[in-house]
Amino acid sequence: MELLEITPDRNQYAYTFGGAPALRRIRPGVALRLWSDDAFGGRLTSVDDRSAEKVDLRFVNPQTGPFHVEGAEPGDTLVLHFVDLVPARDWGASAAIPFFGGMTSTDRTVTLQPPLPDSTWIYQLDRERGTVGFAARNSDHHIELPMNPMLGTVGVAPAAGEVRSSLVPDRFGGNMDTPELRAGATIYLGVNVEGAMFSIGDGHYRQGEGEACGTAVEGAMTTTLIVELIKGNAPGWPRIEHDDAIMTIGSSRPMEDSWRIANADLIGWVSELTGLDQLDSYQLCSQIALAPIANVADANYSVAVKVAKAHLPRAAQAYRGMHDHLREQARQLRG
Amino acid sequence: MELLEITPDRNQYAYTFGGAPALRRIRPGVALRLWSDDAFGGRLTSVDDRSAEKVDLRFVNPQTGPFHVEGAEPGDTLVLHFVDLVPARDWGASAAIPFFGGMTSTDRTVTLQPPLPDSTWIYQLDRERGTVGFAARNSDHHIELPMNPMLGTVGVAPAAGEVRSSLVPDRFGGNMDTPELRAGATIYLGVNVEGAMFSIGDGHYRQGEGEACGTAVEGAMTTTLIVELIKGNAPGWPRIEHDDAIMTIGSSRPMEDSWRIANADLIGWVSELTGLDQLDSYQLCSQIALAPIANVADANYSVAVKVAKAHLPRAAQAYRGMHDHLREQARQLRG
Amino acid sequence: MELLEITPDRNQYAYTFGGAPALRRIRPGVALRLWSDDAFGGRLTSVDDRSAEKVDLRFVNPQTGPFHVEGAEPGDTLVLHFVDLVPARDWGASAAIPFFGGMTSTDRTVTLQPPLPDSTWIYQLDRERGTVGFAARNSDHHIELPMNPMLGTVGVAPAAGEVRSSLVPDRFGGNMDTPELRAGATIYLGVNVEGAMFSIGDGHYRQGEGEACGTAVEGAMTTTLIVELIKGNAPGWPRIEHDDAIMTIGSSRPMEDSWRIANADLIGWVSELTGLDQLDSYQLCSQIALAPIANVADANYSVAVKVAKAHLPRAAQAYRGMHDHLREQARQLRG
Amino acid sequence: MELLEITPDRNQYAYTFGGAPALRRIRPGVALRLWSDDAFGGRLTSVDDRSAEKVDLRFVNPQTGPFHVEGAEPGDTLVLHFVDLVPARDWGASAAIPFFGGMTSTDRTVTLQPPLPDSTWIYQLDRERGTVGFAARNSDHHIELPMNPMLGTVGVAPAAGEVRSSLVPDRFGGNMDTPELRAGATIYLGVNVEGAMFSIGDGHYRQGEGEACGTAVEGAMTTTLIVELIKGNAPGWPRIEHDDAIMTIGSSRPMEDSWRIANADLIGWVSELTGLDQLDSYQLCSQIALAPIANVADANYSVAVKVAKAHLPRAAQAYRGMHDHLREQARQLRG
Repeated sequence: MELLEITPDRNQYAYTFGGAPALRRIRPGVALRLWSDDAFGGRLTSVDDRSAEKVDLRFVNPQTGPFHVEGAEPGDTLVLHFVDLVPARDWGASAAIPFFGGMTSTDRTVTLQPPLPDSTWIYQLDRERGTVGFAARNSDHHIELPMNPMLGTVGVAPAAGEVRSSLVPDRFGGNMDTPELRAGATIYLGVNVEGAMFSIGDGHYRQGEGEACGTAVEGAMTTTLIVELIKGNAPGWPRIEHDDAIMTIGSSRPMEDSWRIANADLIGWVSELTGLDQLDSYQLCSQIALAPIANVADANYSVAVKVAKAHLPRAAQAYRGMHDHLREQARQLRG
Repeated sequence: MELLEITPDRNQYAYTFGGAPALRRIRPGVALRLWSDDAFGGRLTSVDDRSAEKVDLRFVNPQTGPFHVEGAEPGDTLVLHFVDLVPARDWGASAAIPFFGGMTSTDRTVTLQPPLPDSTWIYQLDRERGTVGFAARNSDHHIELPMNPMLGTVGVAPAAGEVRSSLVPDRFGGNMDTPELRAGATIYLGVNVEGAMFSIGDGHYRQGEGEACGTAVEGAMTTTLIVELIKGNAPGWPRIEHDDAIMTIGSSRPMEDSWRIANADLIGWVSELTGLDQLDSYQLCSQIALAPIANVADANYSVAVKVAKAHLPRAAQAYRGMHDHLREQARQLRG
Repeated sequence: MELLEITPDRNQYAYTFGGAPALRRIRPGVALRLWSDDAFGGRLTSVDDRSAEKVDLRFVNPQTGPFHVEGAEPGDTLVLHFVDLVPARDWGASAAIPFFGGMTSTDRTVTLQPPLPDSTWIYQLDRERGTVGFAARNSDHHIELPMNPMLGTVGVAPAAGEVRSSLVPDRFGGNMDTPELRAGATIYLGVNVEGAMFSIGDGHYRQGEGEACGTAVEGAMTTTLIVELIKGNAPGWPRIEHDDAIMTIGSSRPMEDSWRIANADLIGWVSELTGLDQLDSYQLCSQIALAPIANVADANYSVAVKVAKAHLPRAAQAYRGMHDHLREQARQLRG
Repeated sequence: MELLEITPDRNQYAYTFGGAPALRRIRPGVALRLWSDDAFGGRLTSVDDRSAEKVDLRFVNPQTGPFHVEGAEPGDTLVLHFVDLVPARDWGASAAIPFFGGMTSTDRTVTLQPPLPDSTWIYQLDRERGTVGFAARNSDHHIELPMNPMLGTVGVAPAAGEVRSSLVPDRFGGNMDTPELRAGATIYLGVNVEGAMFSIGDGHYRQGEGEACGTAVEGAMTTTLIVELIKGNAPGWPRIEHDDAIMTIGSSRPMEDSWRIANADLIGWVSELTGLDQLDSYQLCSQIALAPIANVADANYSVAVKVAKAHLPRAAQAYRGMHDHLREQARQLRG
């Protein structure tokens, strides 16, 4: 299996979905090992760094990509299976950025209050123990937290000629910031433009659901993924498959709309997999769905709605068993 | 340990938090075994029953209670520990009620579209296997789902002389509809009136997060609980403790506000337990919180924000170890 | 025409809709002249008064009432026509209350930021010129603004046995805070309990749309109104009629839902008045409606949606000409 | 004064803000007379036309432009004064598009209900009487409504390299759909890219506030405007000035955020014009602002918050009297 290793130069970083030239043309079936910088472009390296001075919110979440997938056409389904996510630095950074995050007024939920203190936290990795270390800024509290690498941002070029900031999650994926996007996950994205033009970035060594302060333990990441293409069948919104669950991701405002979007897509998906009509699928999903919030901090809020495969008929295989196939490919790749 | 068994007559059902006379006066430290009717007052018994004909949304979630807790004063903390939740019938009911639920327009999110078909589902319990059976209405799909009994509704009388329908979740608890409220859970509620005047109801044999269609597998329930009282320390919003986690429940609209409410209270609680200041607690919670949606169907939407105890210092004990104390009491009660 | 003059004692103030005993029983057809205290119960009298010290948000908007209207039954329509609103003091007060208002985080839209400075403004009335004087706190800017008396709060007892704080607007009316509720207006409210149990309060000598800071130029008011009763025909939400327009008021969260509620009711009302079916009425209202925001500061946000009578057929008379009839009565009353 | 007349070919229509090549380079100070097609690209011409068949929502609101304004740089303020808006056809069209509009579930506020009937209305103009004629589809009701031409869509290229559909209103202006954007109005827009790249389109012969069904009386328009440039001083959000009022437009979701955005910008603007500090300006605006909803139907909801100049000091002149200057220019242009 072909494995391409790519580490972009800083001047190759993309800050949008759509609008950027292809970093590379690839064929479906290829494996990629991609280095991606952290959300801040590596500019927060010390607790003394102020995000207001170092970070321009118009240019965060630098993307590695976009990749032009040969043969991908509007209406197709791009499939990315994440084989491995390995922190590429021994530290991660997080910050309370003025007027950014879920527990402060923002440029949208505007109030007249002053911002919270502009603060930075640095987390040290302990690769052996698999932890990231939280060190309090204003006391001597310290705690080791399990390292759970994930990608905040995965997406394709949007439809209708739009170009969106890599700070935004929407139909095209983007900055969904869900801990569900981790090694072992397969994501299905509807293709909107020739070549799909997907990119990834915004690695998190760990993130709580909701991403309350707007930033996770942000870190450069080495991501190994396999790229596949299904002709047609484009889902309306991003779908993710794990070994034990399927899920959909809605991103909008207010947050109940994010949930509605994800739920409607899930009900449709479960209908396909079970043969239930819409109303029965609605009823079944009402009793079996999990609904972990992804982020309440970005330009759109994201919610995952998921169903355990255990509650679906044994025979039901999403996308004809694509996930199992890619899991097998991944095993071969890892040798 | 004293155990009071109470099964209310239908004419004793309460449909509000606040405003109803005490069903019984009790002392802190007592255990109760309470029978509660299902959300529909037992009126949906067949798939041929139409909710529009059988159910009046002004009078659902009949409450068993309220109980006047001796010594409880405004500003105190009412503690309820749920020892056991046992389905009191061999079937549960669920329904797509016209203009009620998360995936339809409602009396608040009004549209001009016609309602979804008024439909009822009946679930049969298999106590031995511990399952409830979903039977599709419009195909022959059938699936057994794990029984996971919980209470949709637990609350006290509201502040400021308000009386709220048992369909509403808010500061006083009420119809939070979170699967986190299950056997083994301890809930902390701020007392607003003398005697606290708490009640329970709306048993669910199982519910998905979000309670998408607005109704779970609704069923009469026999609930065993222990009542305690902490003087002072009233939390602003309901708090729940499990053996392995603490959590807060926010209920408002839009749903991001429910999350904000719960998150703010959690950040404060973690500050108390860890000695972290607010900003450090905000940062820590951003990386460790889970945020499962409770309901997107009621008068207010509810969100739980929770933190695993594993991420808090060993010494940290909420409410001076009240939960562990009640777990021990519960063990003795079960004999 | 009978005219009852009522000035309640402070211990007669009601702070809820529903739950309070009748201040007086009245018959339909009666005229009332009611004195109502300001939103703060008259406790802010100087710019040096701090609302945090003087005002308890659980007990604001003291109501004059409730009035038991003889013959009023659930499903009936209570009609109140406002003949005159006369400021009962020579000054009004406004305040930026900590964590209250539209441009600050609140107990619902919670953030971790500190509150805005707790500040009070006092407005002096010039009855001759018909103005209230704004005097800046932090500079010597002074400006005379037209006095436009209105009532922030008018409502009946809620349905389903609920009791709601006089800070809340909802189906039952309540704290709608719309400048449309002024002398010359007729309001139609659905009756939920025997006697209707209506009350009024929260006089504003002037208010901007949105009531941004959460408080208007709050002032004690002498309100002259005529009470009428229409059997049946209860509107789902409050409706207001002026000489030149009809309108509906929706109060919910998020604010688009307030608009949806009001718009749906207006479309239905215009259908009744014109004979248009729902879809044609939807189209017509889309082109002729005005939609002034009422408040974005209360427990629910309120929006008025209105249509000029000039755009409706000459024959169309709401409630069989009730408004014109009451205008005529008012003229007689004023002599 | 130079007057350029431009009627684009259909293949020159732009459907985005940003991303499209300049239709023409112009100098500040120029007057333009621009023909713009209607929102549907002229495809709905009969009540028998179905929008589902004729209209692709990814390509509506065809823009005339964009125009590259020489000398315009990021941070500058683009000024457009609308001299005249003249309907360019003798009929306008409106439609209830499936799952589009404010009183239906949509692709964001998703429900499982079927759409409203796909319906089209055609309005005939009577230029002499200055009216557009509403003819009901499902009865013989007919009514003449005043013609009030306005532009639904005016904007510049967005910041951060984004490209947005002409269906979207946001910081850059775009599809704000406010009746305030009419002849005699001056709009101030922050410049984000070299040349500003502004465009206009989506003429409405008349629109209600809220644009409930999602479409106004849509019509091709001949717009005469004067283009000016102010170096620096870019407002964060669109500002509009009339002879008698200044206002700001916020566009976001939920709608309270649109209001908050507009209100915050207005408070800042009034501070600049009056010398009041933020808190005093907040207080003053709370008592004098009007808040007409613009649209509750687009990708973001728009709200205007406005203040009558009569309530501001006589000397206060926004942008050094730019509006009055352009009114004078307009008078000369009209001869």
